Amino acid sequence: MTTPATDRPGYADRKGAVQMRLRRIEGQVRGLQRMIDEDTYCMDVLTQISAVSRALESVAIALLDDHLHSCVTTAVSEQDADLDAKLDEAMAAIRRLVRS
Amino acid sequence: MTTPATDRPGYADRKGAVQMRLRRIEGQVRGLQRMIDEDTYCMDVLTQISAVSRALESVAIALLDDHLHSCVTTAVSEQDADLDAKLDEAMAAIRRLVRS
Amino acid sequence: MTTPATDRPGYADRKGAVQMRLRRIEGQVRGLQRMIDEDTYCMDVLTQISAVSRALESVAIALLDDHLHSCVTTAVSEQDADLDAKLDEAMAAIRRLVRS
Amino acid sequence: MTTPATDRPGYADRKGAVQMRLRRIEGQVRGLQRMIDEDTYCMDVLTQISAVSRALESVAIALLDDHLHSCVTTAVSEQDADLDAKLDEAMAAIRRLVRS
Repeated sequence: MTTPATDRPGYADRKGAVQMRLRRIEGQVRGLQRMIDEDTYCMDVLTQISAVSRALESVAIALLDDHLHSCVTTAVSEQDADLDAKLDEAMAAIRRLVRS
Repeated sequence: MTTPATDRPGYADRKGAVQMRLRRIEGQVRGLQRMIDEDTYCMDVLTQISAVSRALESVAIALLDDHLHSCVTTAVSEQDADLDAKLDEAMAAIRRLVRS
Repeated sequence: MTTPATDRPGYADRKGAVQMRLRRIEGQVRGLQRMIDEDTYCMDVLTQISAVSRALESVAIALLDDHLHSCVTTAVSEQDADLDAKLDEAMAAIRRLVRS
Repeated sequence: MTTPATDRPGYADRKGAVQMRLRRIEGQVRGLQRMIDEDTYCMDVLTQISAVSRALESVAIALLDDHLHSCVTTAVSEQDADLDAKLDEAMAAIRRLVRS
């Protein structure tokens, strides 16, 4: 009998890198506010919004990548009975990402 | 002969509303950092990232909407010779949004 | 008083090109059916689906481009009272494209 | 030593359903050609293109879902050494879907 999967998230090993990316995104959002304050031309604001969207999307994809690898590795070593449920859950997240 | 379009951006009339939305998005990005700090389950982080992406996308669409109406209105009243160039530019922004 | 915009669609001048792209897309969709028939590896089918999606998206963007230019040109020359309604309608299409 | 994964694709059990969806999509693409032939209003063509895009996206998501479940199930029962490589490959497909 194995212990259940701990609460250690799939991204545990690169928490620092994820945080750094999120802080950079926070800075970009503040940059957007400055652009609006300074009456920046719409099209330039839009270009910057597309850059922030892509940055967020990249974080999402990195987290999903870690998650799939880690939950599948756990499943293989522990014959995790919940694997199907976990994959369904991951697919729901993928569906939201594809649609958003 | 008309005066050239001023530097007043298309979103000038709802600057306050745009800023409020961007500040809320900034708060959401900080919320994401807290989630990572607290080892929140990956799938919940992903759900929240999708929400932020949608919020950003809505701001982009609102800005584009204001921009198209304002640059077209200007064009109609001033026989703006640059209208085609402006529409091409707007299409480039739309293309980036659709792809991002 | 001007005549209302005729029924000539914005893409009238490049109907042939649009049709050719749609026929190529139809061929790609039939190619997908063949791939499934032949038990092609999932990931290769997915790569091909992404290609078809991009092709469709390009047609949509080209049509939107023609539409915006043509309805705005009409508006400028005829002081079209419905211009705002038309731009709102175009924005609705853009929103769907961005979300899809 | 286990037998290598067979060539049976993940969607093998619902090949019929996938084919039916692809045939419907082919019909929709032909419908688009008819719309262009008949000078249908651009915005209505765009609405229909968005519908076809979503239908394609749904097929992609269904295939990915089958694939992940089947390759992970194989991995768990056969201690598949290539599992990491397969997940990387699936992530590449997800990345393309999210971006397309």
